[in-house]
Amino acid sequence: MQDKLLKPEGVDQDVWERMLAASPVEARKIIRKGEFAAPTSGLCPGYAQANLIILPKEDAFDFLLFAQRNPKSCPLLEVTDVGERMAKICARDCDIATDFPRYRIYENGELVKEVTDVSEYFEQRDDLVSFVIGCSFSFESELIEAGIEMRHNTMGRNVPMYLTGVECVPAGSMSGNMVMSMRPIPYDQIVKAVQISGAIPKVHGAPMHIGDPSVIGVKDIDKPEFGDPVDIYPGEVPVFWACGVTPQSVVMQSRPAFAITHAPGHMLITDTKNVDLKG
Amino acid sequence: MQDKLLKPEGVDQDVWERMLAASPVEARKIIRKGEFAAPTSGLCPGYAQANLIILPKEDAFDFLLFAQRNPKSCPLLEVTDVGERMAKICARDCDIATDFPRYRIYENGELVKEVTDVSEYFEQRDDLVSFVIGCSFSFESELIEAGIEMRHNTMGRNVPMYLTGVECVPAGSMSGNMVMSMRPIPYDQIVKAVQISGAIPKVHGAPMHIGDPSVIGVKDIDKPEFGDPVDIYPGEVPVFWACGVTPQSVVMQSRPAFAITHAPGHMLITDTKNVDLKG
Repeated sequence: MQDKLLKPEGVDQDVWERMLAASPVEARKIIRKGEFAAPTSGLCPGYAQANLIILPKEDAFDFLLFAQRNPKSCPLLEVTDVGERMAKICARDCDIATDFPRYRIYENGELVKEVTDVSEYFEQRDDLVSFVIGCSFSFESELIEAGIEMRHNTMGRNVPMYLTGVECVPAGSMSGNMVMSMRPIPYDQIVKAVQISGAIPKVHGAPMHIGDPSVIGVKDIDKPEFGDPVDIYPGEVPVFWACGVTPQSVVMQSRPAFAITHAPGHMLITDTKNVDLKG
Repeated sequence: MQDKLLKPEGVDQDVWERMLAASPVEARKIIRKGEFAAPTSGLCPGYAQANLIILPKEDAFDFLLFAQRNPKSCPLLEVTDVGERMAKICARDCDIATDFPRYRIYENGELVKEVTDVSEYFEQRDDLVSFVIGCSFSFESELIEAGIEMRHNTMGRNVPMYLTGVECVPAGSMSGNMVMSMRPIPYDQIVKAVQISGAIPKVHGAPMHIGDPSVIGVKDIDKPEFGDPVDIYPGEVPVFWACGVTPQSVVMQSRPAFAITHAPGHMLITDTKNVDLKG
């Protein structure tokens, strides 16, 4: 059972239909060609999607330690060898430099541009380490299976993500606040949503917070820092999950000289099945 | 319910009785004073015990990546900041340089000596990173609770540990084969042992192998590479779990210039309860 997935704005109908029918490896090839540069929520249901942060080796230890200390925000699906752009564990025939729909380039913590291919950076330098991080999109298909509506899907939007007041555990030069994604859930489905997502800790696991957004420092639920706002109907409660956009909050606060991330919502579709991430 | 724990050889009766009655912080203080330098299996039941590897910063990234890629062998309970010798997460008032009963010093992959205090190394250099790694001793108390005998405890020995033929996933300069601990389990308790240990992934989780030792490259079950042999009675099967001594196999194969580990079986007793490591 799958809610109707609305075509994101700006995507050709033909490309959208091919993406809806694609296996993960086929979807990555469509993305690699530059045909699809939109949010990936809801695509290839059952397969894990992934966030990205790429850092030079000199900053990689601190970030790897940060991820170890903050596993809810940064569940690592794969960390590449230094200079390696092909994934080996989470997917086959998968080029980390081209297979995300959209990337962000940061210099000294400032977002300098958004691109759809970062091959040139791997050609210019040989010291980059890529961190592929679990994404809550990958448990969404299980929530949908259980009859829980994903409002951002049914509204054809990117999931709303908030820069919260909750501090991560720092590690060396890396620190920052948690980013959380939010889904409105009806009261009678909250426990089920906790249990289903909690069974998959490698894609953020159980929620961080249920209810009043101000408790976690979210000032205006209608103005997410990343993604799009969604409607919350009467009888629904905002439920917040740790989000793999947290590394971007870390980059902005910690200001490493150079970093590449995915653009929020524009994820890697891996070959790893959600069921393989359980336990 | 606790099997009778036999006093390890060479330990004073008075010290042994104080260790049996001690809380984790009290046990660490007895160890810190140098009064107890023996295996810790069975002590402070319910609290997680931990393995150790200390490496200079220059090798720490590769080892952290190795641990990320080999979570069954190297489940990280805590990784310290560079140069820090006090634990902050797994225990309070816990000096990593003194609170293990016994340490091993490796130079270029060769074991050069065994000591009961490594403070001098933290005084000589400021670049050491400590990896505190979950230990199967910490699920033993749950197995004992379930009525499963721990043969090495009832024989007053260290658990047998084997250098197997199973290769770990390499990371940078770090590679090596898995070390596994072995416990003989009666046929009718094997499933229970799998389920109980499998529920605590941060202390190695479910077994790696059940039965014929030759399948994992163990040539002589009576000659473990680490620890002591134990009796296997008719109707019992050798069950193998990933072991936190694996880093020592990695050190011996990868030959970093300098490394400190705990001595096999001589673990840190943490303040972390096993129940807090579940899920």
